[in-house]
Amino acid sequence: MKIGIAGLGLIGGSLALALRDAHEVRGYDIARETREAARTAGLNVVETLEALLPADAVIVATPMNAVLPTLAALVPRAGTAVLLDVASVRAPVDAFARELAAPARLVGLHPMAGRSAWGFAAADAAMLAQRPFLVVPTATSDAPAMAVAGEIARAAGGVVTVCSAVEHDRIVALVSAVPLAVAAALAVAASDGAADLAVFAGPGYRDTTRLALTAPDLGEALLLANSGDVVAALARLRVVLDELEGAIAHRDHAAVRVILQRAASARSRLD
Amino acid sequence: MKIGIAGLGLIGGSLALALRDAHEVRGYDIARETREAARTAGLNVVETLEALLPADAVIVATPMNAVLPTLAALVPRAGTAVLLDVASVRAPVDAFARELAAPARLVGLHPMAGRSAWGFAAADAAMLAQRPFLVVPTATSDAPAMAVAGEIARAAGGVVTVCSAVEHDRIVALVSAVPLAVAAALAVAASDGAADLAVFAGPGYRDTTRLALTAPDLGEALLLANSGDVVAALARLRVVLDELEGAIAHRDHAAVRVILQRAASARSRLD
Repeated sequence: MKIGIAGLGLIGGSLALALRDAHEVRGYDIARETREAARTAGLNVVETLEALLPADAVIVATPMNAVLPTLAALVPRAGTAVLLDVASVRAPVDAFARELAAPARLVGLHPMAGRSAWGFAAADAAMLAQRPFLVVPTATSDAPAMAVAGEIARAAGGVVTVCSAVEHDRIVALVSAVPLAVAAALAVAASDGAADLAVFAGPGYRDTTRLALTAPDLGEALLLANSGDVVAALARLRVVLDELEGAIAHRDHAAVRVILQRAASARSRLD
Repeated sequence: MKIGIAGLGLIGGSLALALRDAHEVRGYDIARETREAARTAGLNVVETLEALLPADAVIVATPMNAVLPTLAALVPRAGTAVLLDVASVRAPVDAFARELAAPARLVGLHPMAGRSAWGFAAADAAMLAQRPFLVVPTATSDAPAMAVAGEIARAAGGVVTVCSAVEHDRIVALVSAVPLAVAAALAVAASDGAADLAVFAGPGYRDTTRLALTAPDLGEALLLANSGDVVAALARLRVVLDELEGAIAHRDHAAVRVILQRAASARSRLD
């Protein structure tokens, strides 16, 4: 396939590197230095967004606040190209697709991958290997467009899961936004006050707070573009945290142990 | 120095491996398989706790619930040996030392290091390198005993910090117990209900919940042996989490950004 990628940061750059062997990939980024870096890495880079077309698919991998403007610029000239985007909150894209006048086909393609570094310099095809790729239809998706999204996700090394925009946003609130919120709150709580106690912390604290290193732009979008789901997911966390805190306060060994065992069992299914 | 180590699990085993080149190290573990594994790794292993003496220092590195019984068994025959212990909660050892009839000298030596695996098989000298070692005096510590603790910590590759038992327990509640509580609560919240949503999670979720893999025994001791400080530390977390949640609910971009920036700034001081 001919695949265009708009935005060559961490995710877009990684997709370009992962797809270039099996497909004809062209990339574009608004920043000239990023285009240069991508060219140096051997990618085929064009000088305008429009030059990504014609294509079988264009993946919009810009920061979240640029996704809708970029899609809007692509829609009128997309032709038969499937327009994919990696936005980590689907509701705005879903609404955009519903009101689309032109006949473009939009599909969400969200790789559940990341690292605390960002930009093309941090891009790495290996980051996507075996990661869940959430493929999210919009009002404009048809079966061939969904198939294109699935094929691209698999070609990038991902494991495809199809879900609705509503499901997607609920999942991401719980597995991406809440971990960020918790990591940030802990990093602040441990460092505030008279002494920065985090300097005494071991690797467990470092792991738990690593997401606090998320770029504030990205974090703000993740927490606020989907604030309703995030607040609901935080409430879900709070139920368990309250239960655990109550058990600690009452020195209820059995109750603490049950929660820790459920947690260890759930977490060990991931490794 | 002649150094005895009682308990050759993750921490005791790592200390033995880290100290054996510069010091004369003898180890003991209650489990025969562990003694065999330590011997196979080239450590000098004895068959009884008492055979660790005479020594310049004995480090008690058993699970927390065995620390006081082990110290009690060592005290009557310790002679001039300094008795160190790695207990991650100091209040019980502090009380024990206060009521000591015999003239033994007790000092806490708590390396802020760990990993989710446990047992001698997971022991590794490198795990201790550059880690903070909290050296905690008791009522029986004297200056030479403190110096022995500091020398051993440095020989194991650690960075020594001296603090009181009260300070120690407050620090550990915030940087060890609260991260465990949060990781466990998140692992349960994301996996409970109709679907285990954690299967869709990326590496950020994995990092944030890694401490949920802590051995339940160890976790229970960490949360309950120091429950007052842990509840206070959870309250400190809750202040920030409530503030962040309120800002999300009110879609207050500026407030969310301020918290994320404080968190990123605090966390980045650690790397």
